[in-house]
Amino acid sequence: MDLTVEEAAAELNKGFQTLEILQKDPAVPVWFIYLNRPAQRNALSLPFFSELPRALALLDRIPSARALVLSARGPHFCSGIDLSSLKSISSSSDDDRAAAAEELRRRILDLQSAITALERCRKPVVAAIQGACIGGGVDLVAACDIRCCEDKAYFAVKEVDVGLVADLGTLQRLPKIVGFGNAMDLALTGRKVSAGEAKAMGLVSRVFADPAKMDEGIFALAKELAAKPALALMGTKAVMMKSRDMAVEKGLDYVATWNAGMLRSRELEEAVLAKLQKRKPNFSKM
Amino acid sequence: MDLTVEEAAAELNKGFQTLEILQKDPAVPVWFIYLNRPAQRNALSLPFFSELPRALALLDRIPSARALVLSARGPHFCSGIDLSSLKSISSSSDDDRAAAAEELRRRILDLQSAITALERCRKPVVAAIQGACIGGGVDLVAACDIRCCEDKAYFAVKEVDVGLVADLGTLQRLPKIVGFGNAMDLALTGRKVSAGEAKAMGLVSRVFADPAKMDEGIFALAKELAAKPALALMGTKAVMMKSRDMAVEKGLDYVATWNAGMLRSRELEEAVLAKLQKRKPNFSKM
Amino acid sequence: MDLTVEEAAAELNKGFQTLEILQKDPAVPVWFIYLNRPAQRNALSLPFFSELPRALALLDRIPSARALVLSARGPHFCSGIDLSSLKSISSSSDDDRAAAAEELRRRILDLQSAITALERCRKPVVAAIQGACIGGGVDLVAACDIRCCEDKAYFAVKEVDVGLVADLGTLQRLPKIVGFGNAMDLALTGRKVSAGEAKAMGLVSRVFADPAKMDEGIFALAKELAAKPALALMGTKAVMMKSRDMAVEKGLDYVATWNAGMLRSRELEEAVLAKLQKRKPNFSKM
Amino acid sequence: MDLTVEEAAAELNKGFQTLEILQKDPAVPVWFIYLNRPAQRNALSLPFFSELPRALALLDRIPSARALVLSARGPHFCSGIDLSSLKSISSSSDDDRAAAAEELRRRILDLQSAITALERCRKPVVAAIQGACIGGGVDLVAACDIRCCEDKAYFAVKEVDVGLVADLGTLQRLPKIVGFGNAMDLALTGRKVSAGEAKAMGLVSRVFADPAKMDEGIFALAKELAAKPALALMGTKAVMMKSRDMAVEKGLDYVATWNAGMLRSRELEEAVLAKLQKRKPNFSKM
Amino acid sequence: MDLTVEEAAAELNKGFQTLEILQKDPAVPVWFIYLNRPAQRNALSLPFFSELPRALALLDRIPSARALVLSARGPHFCSGIDLSSLKSISSSSDDDRAAAAEELRRRILDLQSAITALERCRKPVVAAIQGACIGGGVDLVAACDIRCCEDKAYFAVKEVDVGLVADLGTLQRLPKIVGFGNAMDLALTGRKVSAGEAKAMGLVSRVFADPAKMDEGIFALAKELAAKPALALMGTKAVMMKSRDMAVEKGLDYVATWNAGMLRSRELEEAVLAKLQKRKPNFSKM
Amino acid sequence: MDLTVEEAAAELNKGFQTLEILQKDPAVPVWFIYLNRPAQRNALSLPFFSELPRALALLDRIPSARALVLSARGPHFCSGIDLSSLKSISSSSDDDRAAAAEELRRRILDLQSAITALERCRKPVVAAIQGACIGGGVDLVAACDIRCCEDKAYFAVKEVDVGLVADLGTLQRLPKIVGFGNAMDLALTGRKVSAGEAKAMGLVSRVFADPAKMDEGIFALAKELAAKPALALMGTKAVMMKSRDMAVEKGLDYVATWNAGMLRSRELEEAVLAKLQKRKPNFSKM
Repeated sequence: MDLTVEEAAAELNKGFQTLEILQKDPAVPVWFIYLNRPAQRNALSLPFFSELPRALALLDRIPSARALVLSARGPHFCSGIDLSSLKSISSSSDDDRAAAAEELRRRILDLQSAITALERCRKPVVAAIQGACIGGGVDLVAACDIRCCEDKAYFAVKEVDVGLVADLGTLQRLPKIVGFGNAMDLALTGRKVSAGEAKAMGLVSRVFADPAKMDEGIFALAKELAAKPALALMGTKAVMMKSRDMAVEKGLDYVATWNAGMLRSRELEEAVLAKLQKRKPNFSKM
Repeated sequence: MDLTVEEAAAELNKGFQTLEILQKDPAVPVWFIYLNRPAQRNALSLPFFSELPRALALLDRIPSARALVLSARGPHFCSGIDLSSLKSISSSSDDDRAAAAEELRRRILDLQSAITALERCRKPVVAAIQGACIGGGVDLVAACDIRCCEDKAYFAVKEVDVGLVADLGTLQRLPKIVGFGNAMDLALTGRKVSAGEAKAMGLVSRVFADPAKMDEGIFALAKELAAKPALALMGTKAVMMKSRDMAVEKGLDYVATWNAGMLRSRELEEAVLAKLQKRKPNFSKM
Repeated sequence: MDLTVEEAAAELNKGFQTLEILQKDPAVPVWFIYLNRPAQRNALSLPFFSELPRALALLDRIPSARALVLSARGPHFCSGIDLSSLKSISSSSDDDRAAAAEELRRRILDLQSAITALERCRKPVVAAIQGACIGGGVDLVAACDIRCCEDKAYFAVKEVDVGLVADLGTLQRLPKIVGFGNAMDLALTGRKVSAGEAKAMGLVSRVFADPAKMDEGIFALAKELAAKPALALMGTKAVMMKSRDMAVEKGLDYVATWNAGMLRSRELEEAVLAKLQKRKPNFSKM
Repeated sequence: MDLTVEEAAAELNKGFQTLEILQKDPAVPVWFIYLNRPAQRNALSLPFFSELPRALALLDRIPSARALVLSARGPHFCSGIDLSSLKSISSSSDDDRAAAAEELRRRILDLQSAITALERCRKPVVAAIQGACIGGGVDLVAACDIRCCEDKAYFAVKEVDVGLVADLGTLQRLPKIVGFGNAMDLALTGRKVSAGEAKAMGLVSRVFADPAKMDEGIFALAKELAAKPALALMGTKAVMMKSRDMAVEKGLDYVATWNAGMLRSRELEEAVLAKLQKRKPNFSKM
Repeated sequence: MDLTVEEAAAELNKGFQTLEILQKDPAVPVWFIYLNRPAQRNALSLPFFSELPRALALLDRIPSARALVLSARGPHFCSGIDLSSLKSISSSSDDDRAAAAEELRRRILDLQSAITALERCRKPVVAAIQGACIGGGVDLVAACDIRCCEDKAYFAVKEVDVGLVADLGTLQRLPKIVGFGNAMDLALTGRKVSAGEAKAMGLVSRVFADPAKMDEGIFALAKELAAKPALALMGTKAVMMKSRDMAVEKGLDYVATWNAGMLRSRELEEAVLAKLQKRKPNFSKM
Repeated sequence: MDLTVEEAAAELNKGFQTLEILQKDPAVPVWFIYLNRPAQRNALSLPFFSELPRALALLDRIPSARALVLSARGPHFCSGIDLSSLKSISSSSDDDRAAAAEELRRRILDLQSAITALERCRKPVVAAIQGACIGGGVDLVAACDIRCCEDKAYFAVKEVDVGLVADLGTLQRLPKIVGFGNAMDLALTGRKVSAGEAKAMGLVSRVFADPAKMDEGIFALAKELAAKPALALMGTKAVMMKSRDMAVEKGLDYVATWNAGMLRSRELEEAVLAKLQKRKPNFSKM
């Protein structure tokens, strides 16, 4: 996608069917992506899977977006994948099983790619979770960079109960977040995990007392992120993503190679200078 | 092992030297495997290492077994590997060190394979741990899918204290369950970990107040697992096992390929139908 | 480095510019490495990066060192990398960017190698952390085997705030210690982590009430390690390090091959014999 | 890209700036992609890198395309990357080196992705090479499935001579095709490799006597591929691509999982039936 | 399989349905495994897949077997997998596709495991190939250690032509033997490869003028292998197998660890002594 | 090693016990490293293993060395490892097998590291091989970047014949150079490979008619390498080395990150300028 900044902003303004996207305060370079089908408890439908990566690609282009928040309208974050959309996928072309299987495989890869767009996005994405976060909702937040929730939120890897093997990333990402033992327990039993237990096992970083407090706290956190040196923030995310699947030694070589080209930035100079001058540093946009 | 279901059941009935294997309630498709040498605090002897994989292969064949529990007779779960059996292994053929080393290596690989049989088994295995779980006992439960214990249980990676480098899987599996820092601490110090600390670091998922409560709770948990769609359960376990050692992206491709062939099962239809009809779903056996 | 034991000891006695190295009690085979620039809050300077690996290589040679403690003089453990040393690195040879980048890459690899020396050292290294542990300090302790701190200690992956992508190992090692979610949170936000939270997420194994209690407790812990069978201790550390980046199955084969040659040690015999004779075992030096 | 077959065909008809794409014979499901800037010896310009993946995605959708040929107009296959386009990439935003480096990295990843589209395409791609195939041309053909050339063709990994480290795939793919020793030799020396030597080291599968013979032979080969069972062909390509970077054991599990869902196709039945009935099998389109 | 040497020999004598196994000369520790269904051109049937691993495990136990030859009765080595056996696999349990797919996956894994037994066998296996070696025959020989053929032999990865994705190892092992380019060409086109071309691409090490010459030459080669130090031979095979899927650095550590326990063998002493005494060395059995 | 250029040159001048190191023509930035124990057919002794890495580190520092040649005095390149040195390694500390094994492992790792220094060296190393290249000699040249030999040269992976598992890199590097099948054949049989066969299987890139022609040809080749842009040459070697053990996709990301920092060099500008001005480019030193 090779749009100019203006074209990207215009595209964003056209609106989305399953998402609401907005910058709450034009002076603050933080953008919010809301799952916006509260009547369906934000069940993930097929249009969502094409709108999310498009939205992220656009926001990646826009300098006024330096931190992103993935949130949801209504009392619940997400009730999982929309089973009717699943039906349309799995029932297609029944006349030859093998061809149908091949097509199904490609469709699943496409859905996965929509979720992985959260990791590909250069800017940090904070998930703000209220109420239920179930099935596909867990796949979704597992691909965000920082997860926070309110006190009544709960999580459940529910796929097994409807006869599914979760295939949007939970089985791959959760073990690295909460440990293999906890992840296997959650995936086999589908049991509810409260906000408190989620915090204890590392699934969320922070629990807020209620949704209102969370809105406030998340905005503050995102603002803080948005004020940090953009290149260093983006580099940190990218290097951690790449190092996740590498031997430690290879990850070390990777970050050395990264910094070889990107260390001597103005941001370092500005940070050091600001410290000496005892003022707030002022970082350019990405 | 290509036995019919009947042959497998008959084999199971012949009994085991170090294990007791039983289905507590013929109406409930849950089977129990008990370590059954309480006088030796269930120390792992050589026969155990051939009986465990055989038992698991048989139970894997039997449709009436849809969830397994690994438990132990007596006050302690397991005091570790039987040092006398170790002696018989390490002292063999002393006349040529290199040949002896080669034979020793093969024997260790065989012992490891017996433990790994817990992961190869398609059905979920829940460990129920009371009293001491030491040395080889930790290797054993680290290969189970879900670990629970009672309040007085404790764990110790004790090998280093008898001059051994633990070689049955603890050093490989523990870091992925409790994190690398905790695992290194436990493996170097051999210190006792209480039930509470075990829960906090993710080594167990649940702590029951006492052994009796644990028996009850574990049976309930296993029953619940046994009532879930068998194919989805098995697929979830298999995909998590395979994804554990893969890059996230490769794990995503793997599960897409898995579901391409195995998503459109009757289980999904039954699960969705049951939901609509507001009744309990009824899943076929594996 | 192929020194005799005597030469190594003599080298150690010559002293270090940024470190203080001492054996507190000649009867106890525990050595302490102190970061020794308290006036600079133990900021990591260029000489430190050549002194640390040299010290570790020497201590690795000396039989009277069976456990090591990495500690710090003054109220704070470490305030991170010395920005002036960073400057000398990054500003060199400005006339050709690409050549400068290549040189910078090699220098970073050298700095990393100094930290990794903690993992290469065959003997266990315990980190004792008081006060602030910031930026490069986190890189440093993440490469130690066991981490303990006192109640007022705190941690912060601060690099992003000065425009840097942390390149000394935190981004690679932290996710394996505290989970990927916690690690990403800490690395992006740079927020302070208290001793209590550090314990809860597995960053430290033990929290002591105050620095004095920590000194005492750490010495006791190190003494305990030093009394264990040296070969088994060293083998456990080495096997865990190698297995960290391997598939479980490959790690199992590796430890089987390791033990094939190194299992039948006198240590095992002594440990078993001591147990039978109900006396304390007596292990030889490494 | 979620176009219908008709939309894809219409898109293809709109034409390309750097490519010519055509189906020579409407009765034969083989499509040709010609590099079409003979006056510039088919140097790879920026538009090429967006047109190639687009063309491949469209052809992937069209059932009448069952095998693809990558070929070139004019006496030479490809003289490498267009240095002027390189200039526009590398000189952008000179005011901050680090930001420029980050942008450059993303641009290179985009260029690479255009080449990798050849591997992502489900259908087999045969490269037909005449004259010079230099620099970026080698990157290009290294990502094709089968490589053939005419007798006067020659290859050179020329990047090093213009001060570049080849970054479009040659350094990664060539060692797996011709062995690490041959690949290092070619990449360091930039020397010319004749058609004969290319055949001997496995860089091409077939050498034709002259361009005309090659046209004929390639068309016959592509026709033959196009007549094979489409699902099996696609599955073979996909499994080989995935297995390339996996341990043998993981690759075996992957293909077992693939075939679990896709083995029982009508193609197998048709192939066996045709054999029994001694007639040519008739396979459906992909 | 924990048989004594005598039990293993007795088992071998009971005979096999699809194999003929014999030691041609009791004084020469070389055993031959013949594919023995010449009337079916040695098509691989289901019994073969359980007999081959059993035979190899028995021969692995027998000291009089120090080198193995895999050969075939009749004019052709192997015409591939027996399609009727494939039918019995793929048509089972048609009533639920997903369950059938899961069962099929396990069956394929079993078939693969039978082939991989050639690699697991500690002793070297030489393949002697005459006439046609097609489909499953290529999977089979790709898992042998050394491949030789006679002048009229030819090879074809034929699976694609009957609508199959080869799933017994060819797609994984062939690229490492003949390079990725050659392997992709053979797998997509299914074309015949002559003995000469097979030699040129590294698929076979030696081509003999005719089957009789091959019998002679192979026996000589196997005798030579059988006379070499058994531990070193076995170690070399094992280390190469393990290193195949490891980074070079990890493979180096692995072999260092291997030799740490197995280097100081009597074989080295005998080899050096024999050299000094200018006599043939005399190595003990494995 | 942090020497200035002058110190490095002075060190080089002090001379070596097992090597002769010289710059044949002060005007040509090519240096030769000769194995210099012709009376022992250049058997690799313990001093060699410390001198080689030291020499390479020094030459890496010296701008007048832009290409290196590894060659040998006398009629034979190398007869393998010196068995007497091996003896001193393996017989040390016989009183405790496990401790001896641990020490042996470290010593082997040290020897390996000396060979790997050839890969770590940033500058290209060309091996020029005459006469016999046996055992350790093959390990040595397998770590060079380009291998050439004269017509009478031959190669043999001879370790197995003296009861050894080759542990200096041949078993890891050879399969990637000549393919897994050829490498297994050579390693199990220890058979002689002539110059012609070595060329055919990719073990050497060029065969010269006799040693004199080789001297001439190698000097010309090294001169040519020395005239190329140094940064691009070094980058190409480093990227190929790193990519060897990475998935293709990770290797692509690595080289993109490399070039992000190191693409915009003066060398590219000079190369393009020289082309336009039709003169020979003039590249700065490394």
